[in-house]
Amino acid sequence: MGKIWIVGIGPGNQEMMTKKAIDTLKNSDVIIGYTGYIALLGDDFSNIEKIATGMRGEVERCRMCFEKALENKNVSLICSGDAGVYGMASLIFELSSEYSEVEIEVVPGVSASLSGAAILGAPINHDFVTISLSDLLTPWEVIEKRLRMASAGDFVITLYNPSSHKRKDYLERACEILLENLSGDTACGYVKNIGRNGEAAWVGTLLELKDEKVDMFTTCFIGNSQTFIKDGKLITPRGYKI
Amino acid sequence: MGKIWIVGIGPGNQEMMTKKAIDTLKNSDVIIGYTGYIALLGDDFSNIEKIATGMRGEVERCRMCFEKALENKNVSLICSGDAGVYGMASLIFELSSEYSEVEIEVVPGVSASLSGAAILGAPINHDFVTISLSDLLTPWEVIEKRLRMASAGDFVITLYNPSSHKRKDYLERACEILLENLSGDTACGYVKNIGRNGEAAWVGTLLELKDEKVDMFTTCFIGNSQTFIKDGKLITPRGYKI
Repeated sequence: MGKIWIVGIGPGNQEMMTKKAIDTLKNSDVIIGYTGYIALLGDDFSNIEKIATGMRGEVERCRMCFEKALENKNVSLICSGDAGVYGMASLIFELSSEYSEVEIEVVPGVSASLSGAAILGAPINHDFVTISLSDLLTPWEVIEKRLRMASAGDFVITLYNPSSHKRKDYLERACEILLENLSGDTACGYVKNIGRNGEAAWVGTLLELKDEKVDMFTTCFIGNSQTFIKDGKLITPRGYKI
Repeated sequence: MGKIWIVGIGPGNQEMMTKKAIDTLKNSDVIIGYTGYIALLGDDFSNIEKIATGMRGEVERCRMCFEKALENKNVSLICSGDAGVYGMASLIFELSSEYSEVEIEVVPGVSASLSGAAILGAPINHDFVTISLSDLLTPWEVIEKRLRMASAGDFVITLYNPSSHKRKDYLERACEILLENLSGDTACGYVKNIGRNGEAAWVGTLLELKDEKVDMFTTCFIGNSQTFIKDGKLITPRGYKI
């Protein structure tokens, strides 16, 4: 019987993977993942069989992992960032009742909130929330409510999936909701293509963020009431007296 | 002129560090950190000078990093988990105006919410908040407000620093506040000593969590309205239809 590892690969290059993630991929019989994530691996792990499946095929992708495990193959299912943060870990566990003999292990990775924060400076150095603006699987009303509660609680807010071809105005809509509770001067930032070709960082105010054009490979950061910008870095103090 | 890297070391063993973190530590002239974190490195990086400083000495520790950098040493300041999530990154950036010549880089790591989630299953597989229950640097009223907003927003909640010698009842107090908005049946879990000796996981209801005895080396997880326990794993569905 094979085993399934759900592996968070961070931005995709080995430099930002954990040693355990690298070793797990190296020791797999097959690496399975969304086409875009398999592409991120490039020529790495070239002696391991790789299977890429398309977007929206998540359930089929996870079932394929179990089927390969039943064929006595050790399977790594890769997720960008972490394996659990909007990743495939929960879906694998949900499906596992149909394949109860297959052992499952989650190998965590550096999620975009952490890797993006490192580029921007120290924006999530206090209590923070992570919200996805994608309403493919979550009703927009739930997303709206969470934006309101997050801003009312003075959390630092990180936004995943802030835009896509079909959701071009979602970041603007989210910023408008946040502006109900937050000042337009709130310090913000975003990073495009974290740890990949074309990496680019931006810092500015919430009012400016509202009009920024970002894509689905962007992670946005909205500061709390203490966050500030200094020398181009976005910094949320922990509260130490200097 | 030396440089400062603020390095997230995850739970502490190399297996859960990124390759970049390992390489950065290897190439440092000196590794500086809280006594407990230096101890986590054990005999690793044995050819690098290590300096351990006590708790509550965070500002002095960070100043020491700049002073070593001014002595032309390349410094790794280690933080457990991530470098930014309740770590030293923001303090280093705050102090940097006094040492403007010194270059700074943040090397992210696997924070306890991610490494703990991997052990429990998939608890943070949807929007989540991270709250520290330590009121050393944050007024308790702010923490209370954030607990209320997080539960009102139906976020998964991860709690850092849920207890200490002087704050034995803080988890109980936090759970009581959460119970204003959440059902006592809400699926919860925690992990002690993630990735270290004595690692132990627990799952149960919010009502049960309220009476659990945890320590400062514990990370707690409170599910959202969709989270469930299955075969001892804590799972928050992303929303895929199976």
